[in-house]
Amino acid sequence: MIVTLAGGVGASRLLRGLVAVVDPSSVTAVVNTGDDIVVHGLHVSPDLDTVTYALAGVVDHRRGWGVAGESWTVLEALERFGPAAPESSSAGLTWFRLGDRDLATHLYRTQRLREGAPLSLVTAELARAWDLRCRILPMTDNRVLTRLDVEGEGEIGFQDYFVGRRHDVVVLSVRFAGAEDAVPAPGVLEALMGAERVVIAPSNPVVSIGPVLAVPGIDDAVAARREDTVAVSPIVAGAALRGPAARLMAELGHESSVVGVARLWAPLAATLVVDEADAALAPAVEEEGLRCVVAPTIMRGPDEAAALARVVLGR
Amino acid sequence: MIVTLAGGVGASRLLRGLVAVVDPSSVTAVVNTGDDIVVHGLHVSPDLDTVTYALAGVVDHRRGWGVAGESWTVLEALERFGPAAPESSSAGLTWFRLGDRDLATHLYRTQRLREGAPLSLVTAELARAWDLRCRILPMTDNRVLTRLDVEGEGEIGFQDYFVGRRHDVVVLSVRFAGAEDAVPAPGVLEALMGAERVVIAPSNPVVSIGPVLAVPGIDDAVAARREDTVAVSPIVAGAALRGPAARLMAELGHESSVVGVARLWAPLAATLVVDEADAALAPAVEEEGLRCVVAPTIMRGPDEAAALARVVLGR
Repeated sequence: MIVTLAGGVGASRLLRGLVAVVDPSSVTAVVNTGDDIVVHGLHVSPDLDTVTYALAGVVDHRRGWGVAGESWTVLEALERFGPAAPESSSAGLTWFRLGDRDLATHLYRTQRLREGAPLSLVTAELARAWDLRCRILPMTDNRVLTRLDVEGEGEIGFQDYFVGRRHDVVVLSVRFAGAEDAVPAPGVLEALMGAERVVIAPSNPVVSIGPVLAVPGIDDAVAARREDTVAVSPIVAGAALRGPAARLMAELGHESSVVGVARLWAPLAATLVVDEADAALAPAVEEEGLRCVVAPTIMRGPDEAAALARVVLGR
Repeated sequence: MIVTLAGGVGASRLLRGLVAVVDPSSVTAVVNTGDDIVVHGLHVSPDLDTVTYALAGVVDHRRGWGVAGESWTVLEALERFGPAAPESSSAGLTWFRLGDRDLATHLYRTQRLREGAPLSLVTAELARAWDLRCRILPMTDNRVLTRLDVEGEGEIGFQDYFVGRRHDVVVLSVRFAGAEDAVPAPGVLEALMGAERVVIAPSNPVVSIGPVLAVPGIDDAVAARREDTVAVSPIVAGAALRGPAARLMAELGHESSVVGVARLWAPLAATLVVDEADAALAPAVEEEGLRCVVAPTIMRGPDEAAALARVVLGR
């Protein structure tokens, strides 16, 4: 069993590589749900959806999320109502891009949750509908909300930060509301305990992997498997391939480099895979107490993803 | 001011006639919300939407509800998830036909209700977005649920009955859950008190007009305006033009004829408009204590609707 702690786009690409090089039924993804948002009454799980769509082969590769060939009929119709709402309302909001096919996922998930089904079950049902053979687990069935304290604004939700403000604000701190009372989803700890390999995906360490590790029990379970845990740095040459990982790390007092990533993951992972662009920093990474593997980590397509998966698995 | 108690399709056609023959800003519709349903987490108000779309000129005339030229991308995508859900789940349900453009209305309404806006305000915002000059009021801002006791099944919700079972079941009784604690939406009683004319639309007396009158205060307010109240019979030649009005009336012990309608509305309306097909029953209607006006009541298009509106207004 290969267990991957996963955020969205970067993780989904590595997961596609993993299921290409090993039996998909031996792959488990433990996915961040701190980004989940209820919008227009619908429960949206962006990272679960990105991972599911990617593994189903229907993801929009250019965007990295959503369904390929998506249409936006509902969203365009919603724009009519935008100005009708008072200033303070987000009812006509269309910044949160809900595609028509993507909406079907949210409608299904919302109905099932309202019926009392736990998120893990709903996630499994969606995976089955897409004929996936690997296993996708939310980090928890409880509600954990990634909240960011933004300079000059106070605390806001993740999607307000990430989509609404295009992460172009100064973050003072991050917390995962509800995490202290959350329990790992059924199967998460068992998967980690029995894993041949634990992988920390090249996702944002602060807001993608951070929430997963904030669920009590997961951090300890990964630490207990440190020798078999491999992390892939999401930072390449001091920058994130996409998203605010580098900026967030710097703002929260971490070095935004593979060395900074090494310091974060040293208690959890014995190995860190860094990109060839960072080969010169390998000794500094190893000084943090991890074995450093240098390899191409930028996954432009399935071949690179499969190659990186082989590196991660040491094959 | 012309105030119309309204259900869905039949009422929406008469309302289009009314706004064609009088200043639209003098027309108020008080609309049934007992059919409202939360499906996939979205608050759907079928009758409010039918009335709004019809008055906006975007209704699908053939169906009588929904938006003309509608697409069904979301619903088709949802069908993928149907079989994934357990038997007992309705998460993949697609019998409730949610069109793409229609969904935008439900997304907007749901978000606003979640923000704490009352349904009457949301309804006004939607009407404004469609540039309507007439006023559309829900019968109440409270939750009232039309529930039907169905032979061999027990109690089910309105949409389960109407859409799910295509009203092809035996109804033993109908109740409006929550009505006893509901209050009329702001403006409803004032509109009725100040109306030049109160109109009971040719909607299903039991499940469309019934819920409106079940909201405490509305029935009395209409009765107080009996002399100025005109009802239009939804029963023509013993049958309903669409839907289960005739069957429901018979099953609940009413005569499914204009005479049965006259008995129902006699305490509330001084005048009943019946179709020319029922001209022979005019004396029997008048025996129930209402003035009977015979006129064409079948509204195939705007001309017939306007003509019927003139009859209703006595012009």
